[in-house]
Amino acid sequence: MDYTHETTKNTNGTAIPDMTTTSNGSPTSPTTEKVARGRYRHLALVHRGHRTSCLSHDSENSPSFLGFRNLMVIVLIVMNLRLVIENFMKYGVLICIRCHDYRKQDLILGAILYVMTPCYLYVAYIIERAAKDQAMEALGKAKKNNENPQNGAQVVKSFQSTWRNIAWAHGINATLSLLVTSIVVYNYIHHPLIGTVSEVHAIIVWLKICSYAFTNRDLRHALLNPNHAEPLPDLYSICPYPRNITLRNLNYFWWAPTLVYQPVYPRTSRIRWLFVAKRIAECISLSIFIWLASAQYAAPLLHNSIFKMASFDVPSILERLMKLSTISLIIWLAGFFAVFHSSLNALAEVMMFDDREFYTEWWNSPSVGVYWREWNKPVYHFMRRHVHNPLMARGWSFNAASAWVFIFSGLLHELLVGVPTHNILGVAFIGMVVQIPMIYVTMPLEKMKGPNGQPLAALLYFFAWQAKYGSASKNSFR
Amino acid sequence: MDYTHETTKNTNGTAIPDMTTTSNGSPTSPTTEKVARGRYRHLALVHRGHRTSCLSHDSENSPSFLGFRNLMVIVLIVMNLRLVIENFMKYGVLICIRCHDYRKQDLILGAILYVMTPCYLYVAYIIERAAKDQAMEALGKAKKNNENPQNGAQVVKSFQSTWRNIAWAHGINATLSLLVTSIVVYNYIHHPLIGTVSEVHAIIVWLKICSYAFTNRDLRHALLNPNHAEPLPDLYSICPYPRNITLRNLNYFWWAPTLVYQPVYPRTSRIRWLFVAKRIAECISLSIFIWLASAQYAAPLLHNSIFKMASFDVPSILERLMKLSTISLIIWLAGFFAVFHSSLNALAEVMMFDDREFYTEWWNSPSVGVYWREWNKPVYHFMRRHVHNPLMARGWSFNAASAWVFIFSGLLHELLVGVPTHNILGVAFIGMVVQIPMIYVTMPLEKMKGPNGQPLAALLYFFAWQAKYGSASKNSFR
Repeated sequence: MDYTHETTKNTNGTAIPDMTTTSNGSPTSPTTEKVARGRYRHLALVHRGHRTSCLSHDSENSPSFLGFRNLMVIVLIVMNLRLVIENFMKYGVLICIRCHDYRKQDLILGAILYVMTPCYLYVAYIIERAAKDQAMEALGKAKKNNENPQNGAQVVKSFQSTWRNIAWAHGINATLSLLVTSIVVYNYIHHPLIGTVSEVHAIIVWLKICSYAFTNRDLRHALLNPNHAEPLPDLYSICPYPRNITLRNLNYFWWAPTLVYQPVYPRTSRIRWLFVAKRIAECISLSIFIWLASAQYAAPLLHNSIFKMASFDVPSILERLMKLSTISLIIWLAGFFAVFHSSLNALAEVMMFDDREFYTEWWNSPSVGVYWREWNKPVYHFMRRHVHNPLMARGWSFNAASAWVFIFSGLLHELLVGVPTHNILGVAFIGMVVQIPMIYVTMPLEKMKGPNGQPLAALLYFFAWQAKYGSASKNSFR
Repeated sequence: MDYTHETTKNTNGTAIPDMTTTSNGSPTSPTTEKVARGRYRHLALVHRGHRTSCLSHDSENSPSFLGFRNLMVIVLIVMNLRLVIENFMKYGVLICIRCHDYRKQDLILGAILYVMTPCYLYVAYIIERAAKDQAMEALGKAKKNNENPQNGAQVVKSFQSTWRNIAWAHGINATLSLLVTSIVVYNYIHHPLIGTVSEVHAIIVWLKICSYAFTNRDLRHALLNPNHAEPLPDLYSICPYPRNITLRNLNYFWWAPTLVYQPVYPRTSRIRWLFVAKRIAECISLSIFIWLASAQYAAPLLHNSIFKMASFDVPSILERLMKLSTISLIIWLAGFFAVFHSSLNALAEVMMFDDREFYTEWWNSPSVGVYWREWNKPVYHFMRRHVHNPLMARGWSFNAASAWVFIFSGLLHELLVGVPTHNILGVAFIGMVVQIPMIYVTMPLEKMKGPNGQPLAALLYFFAWQAKYGSASKNSFR
């Protein structure tokens, strides 16, 4: 508190304190900082006028919360790392490769189903070849009989019974493809993983058969009715019907990362093998992560959850459900990325398939409806092209067609979950059907979307619920 | 698979399918959706050209992750709610109002200290009144002796010894104000909460006394040297020295939400009592939340942490530290909001104090240095005006002045933490001094700040560390 030092400097009086310009609270770096070596720093003006707290409603511009987001990320990482340590201290290492009960019968049946399933696609090809021959013959006959080959309606009418036979042949083939696998898996495959892989494979091929049959039906129809046909998409002119009915064309569709048949797809000019390698590495890493997370965290959790749930102790049940929902969500996200980003991109690169939009920003969905349109584009495209729009064309309302899409999807989900676990409980079916009212409840939120595009959290509540449902259905695995 | 239905509709052939315009994947609401009732929906073009996955590096514009942020918020809430339930199942209700050991002696001494502490501020006022009288007398004498009253240097020279006496008087008074409280708290107050409140009160009043003395010293100096004085801030002209040396002016400073004395502050025109009520309600709610969180979560955690830490089992220690850091962080954030937003805004509103910038967006700080400039503006203003800038004016380097600010602040922190817990361990002091190298280590990050203002997470690692340090120092409470 020696004030005299200042006084001796008094006679200099050269510099002017710049406190009035530097103490405005903005961060000033030491290099650009200039503090006057003058006097009267202790009386500098600090509180110069009206200022609000940046978190106050009085504040004109709302502050950025980016830092809080980073903080959340760190807290999430720390909280989960803690749970990892806690789990390790409680259970030790639970991961065990040899403990899995892969029966010999399961492996043999799985291999047979894996080879057999694509065969139905080739049966569909044979049917289409026959249909093509019939159509060409009918077209030739019509040309010969009536010198006006533009009179397509006449040709189609004569083609009516053939049309029906083709439909029946496709119907029987497609139904068989799904039925045989489901019966084998339900009755003879014990291990749920082998069963699920076989069932997923069968459903994918089934959807591909349906798309192949429906698309070629329309293409054939367009050929027979050139005067009534609206113009076909330009891309298809590269390979017009019936030139697309070749084994090579079908082989491409078999492996292409889509469920929707097109005679021609957008293609890339070369395969970037480094890209493929990266995607495969991602996929392998995520698969290992999912395996570790399931074996070490989800499994003991599910195990003691069943016990707790049976006790009907509400806090215990809630606690278990919350812990399950977090781990389910993490596994779900890892699985989503592994399948929809890594695997499908790797496959697309190898197949030189140029449309990589396998998902869009579903995490920003303002409503349940948008979520379902965005998270799984291959299935969405199939449902829209082969279920929803044809139904609307037949006079169904938009809502009725949408409802049917979810009922249909629910049936497929029930097959997917119920068959490999030998329990057709209807949980997966109900889970999908419940989406219909959810879509209508959250639909107003799509329009409420603020000017800054802030998506509402509604979807995420739903998401948390879905994670729980997911884990509940996994429950039946054990 | 009945294709004939389509065929009968064939002759209409009116509408054209608009699949090519609606199947572009953008969310379309059912009301605006128009699906053509024409034919050939099954051959619609879905894969029309090059498209990338939005999470791919190939994608030109990076997607918005707002939805993931919301998802994180929900996961954080769910994870913490789960911990709440787990804690409840483990410990039951630990909250107990009557269990607190508030001794009669503590309450009496606390009350005495509460009343006594502001008295030192009034002693400072008496000293300033005497100084003012002396200064006016010296000024009058100089006017009489020398008809040129502009010759301030002469007046100041004759005022030299008086100057010293004032400094000593202020020094003794200020030191006493801090010393008496510290000795009483350290030796006679058992309860750490009462001790902390008394000590915080004493430190605030001490800082106010210092600011009052320093500012009036400079104002008096400016009065005695009108020719050498650079212009004073315009705001001060409303109440120039010595008119500010009044009880009323000091009373205002006593309660104003600032540690920096100004003769005049920016003021509002009226008190919004609803605003005050809201801020007080926030403050009460947050205080209850902090109390519950401390008693129910932090206390048992700390209790069994000490036991675990003593075992030197690394996974256990890590697990405890992580759990402690999360709850400490939550309590710290609640405390920050309660003090720096709610309480100070309520007080400012009642005092009609218009500068409410008690903090700025510290959560977005790109470095430790910026964090310390932003999170506690009242102390930052004091340190800048009365410690940092005066030291630089005396020729200290920026870095040396900054280092001294942190050493000085460390001493105050040690008083604040060590005295009420009767343990001067130096942990709080070291915690503050460690900031000095931290600031230099993270300083390059300030410049690395990207064009989109993305703050780096560096601060938050530090923050997590601080949370741990905070809990470690709390440790000594028990």
